[in-house]
Amino acid sequence: MSTPYADLVRDRFGEAPGPAWAELPEVEAIGRILARRTHRAYQDRPVPDALVSLLCRAALSASAKSDFQQASILLVRDTAKRAALAAPFPAMPWIGAAPVFLVFLGDARRLERLGALRGHPQDNGILEGFFNAAVDAALALQTFILAAESAGLGCCPISVLRNEAPLVGEVLGLPDKVFPVAGLCVGWPASEGHLSMRLPTALTMHVDRYDDAALETAIADYDAQREARHPTPRDKQRAPSRFGYAERYGWSEDKARQSAQGEGAAFPPWLRDHGFTLG
Amino acid sequence: MSTPYADLVRDRFGEAPGPAWAELPEVEAIGRILARRTHRAYQDRPVPDALVSLLCRAALSASAKSDFQQASILLVRDTAKRAALAAPFPAMPWIGAAPVFLVFLGDARRLERLGALRGHPQDNGILEGFFNAAVDAALALQTFILAAESAGLGCCPISVLRNEAPLVGEVLGLPDKVFPVAGLCVGWPASEGHLSMRLPTALTMHVDRYDDAALETAIADYDAQREARHPTPRDKQRAPSRFGYAERYGWSEDKARQSAQGEGAAFPPWLRDHGFTLG
Repeated sequence: MSTPYADLVRDRFGEAPGPAWAELPEVEAIGRILARRTHRAYQDRPVPDALVSLLCRAALSASAKSDFQQASILLVRDTAKRAALAAPFPAMPWIGAAPVFLVFLGDARRLERLGALRGHPQDNGILEGFFNAAVDAALALQTFILAAESAGLGCCPISVLRNEAPLVGEVLGLPDKVFPVAGLCVGWPASEGHLSMRLPTALTMHVDRYDDAALETAIADYDAQREARHPTPRDKQRAPSRFGYAERYGWSEDKARQSAQGEGAAFPPWLRDHGFTLG
Repeated sequence: MSTPYADLVRDRFGEAPGPAWAELPEVEAIGRILARRTHRAYQDRPVPDALVSLLCRAALSASAKSDFQQASILLVRDTAKRAALAAPFPAMPWIGAAPVFLVFLGDARRLERLGALRGHPQDNGILEGFFNAAVDAALALQTFILAAESAGLGCCPISVLRNEAPLVGEVLGLPDKVFPVAGLCVGWPASEGHLSMRLPTALTMHVDRYDDAALETAIADYDAQREARHPTPRDKQRAPSRFGYAERYGWSEDKARQSAQGEGAAFPPWLRDHGFTLG
């Protein structure tokens, strides 16, 4: 790795690290993670089946809560199914176009079946089962992504899939207590991709006690740094018919607008119709 | 990497991969992930602060749902706080003894504060906010683990911390809508660690449609393979006073017993007392 950590950290966080960083050994994988990017445009070049299969096995080597192993991975090969999943998201054409598309599933069903098989029945549709299965799927998802990136592939997680949980469940034949956590587009990158700048670590890293007293000033600074790198054109402001146009637009304004729009409202009722009491 | 994938996959899944695997390029990081192990015993050798700090930044370079960035990481340095967190878990002395102990937090509070700051108030304590924050924390956790392992460190995630959410929240000063997903022990491994064999991929990998019709036979086979490698002594059977002794013990019996015991019951009421409606 030729780039020292300091440059990578500056690019990612806008922060200048202390001198002790220079003495750390250069680990290629750490540099690759600090420099990682989401990729939504892919070369017209297939990803070998064996590689996808290998990466799924790497993903399933992730940590799993209590060794319960509540993640499943579903590869969408059928073109009609793929098109059906992509149809609700015309603004994200990569969902239909990526060379490989996977869905990472929280699988609270398997553990419940084990209980029935072994004569120790239990309801795994409570919040604990849902939470553990969701986290296991996320651990597998991130492991897939990092393994794929180490092989030169690019990925884009598709969490909006959950907003269409009824469709996803129908198309993929998901039984009760199996739910999508996210889709994942995979392919050989066709462009550099976009490095997503992260919040200052004063907000996201804490010692001994959670403390976000600096939030307001840290966010203003972060907004300014991001806008300086990639200014948001006025016509890219989110939902102006509802929120109007902001003089000072930025990450916080955009994310506040996005989260106020209540996307994902279809997910909880779908879960409750599919075996989860979430109690 | 000198070990070909085939051996690693056999060790992890008890499966013989097809011939196409031999033609894949050897990627060091993929081999390392396939061979990864949890480590609970650590050398008496400090982990440099700068390395922990770097690994946290790698972790925060993970994917984040909608760029909402709802993960926070808390480093527990204070020895009294550390002892308080470890006290309820005498069977897991590594919680108190590991050179480094972190807590990965789902942080649904920050996005809600942004909404208030920007004049777009919203309740992020609904299921969507909880789910997204939990998944973001899991993505960061797994990224930390893989980055740490690439530097030669060993890790052990501590999900039981949630079972003591009231204590954790008190000790770490967690405000409403900030919750522990898992703790993480980190240090230089003092032993080889244990390779956790994973379920046959016939159960965990699906194509086009979820299908677990083979569960019963696949689990019986898996139980047998695991027991052949690491037999469970009779006195290690879980909770015999409740479940008795099983003639054929194994992973499925152990996990069915564990999940039937209802651990984690304290977490949902704690969440509901701390700003989450989960609606």
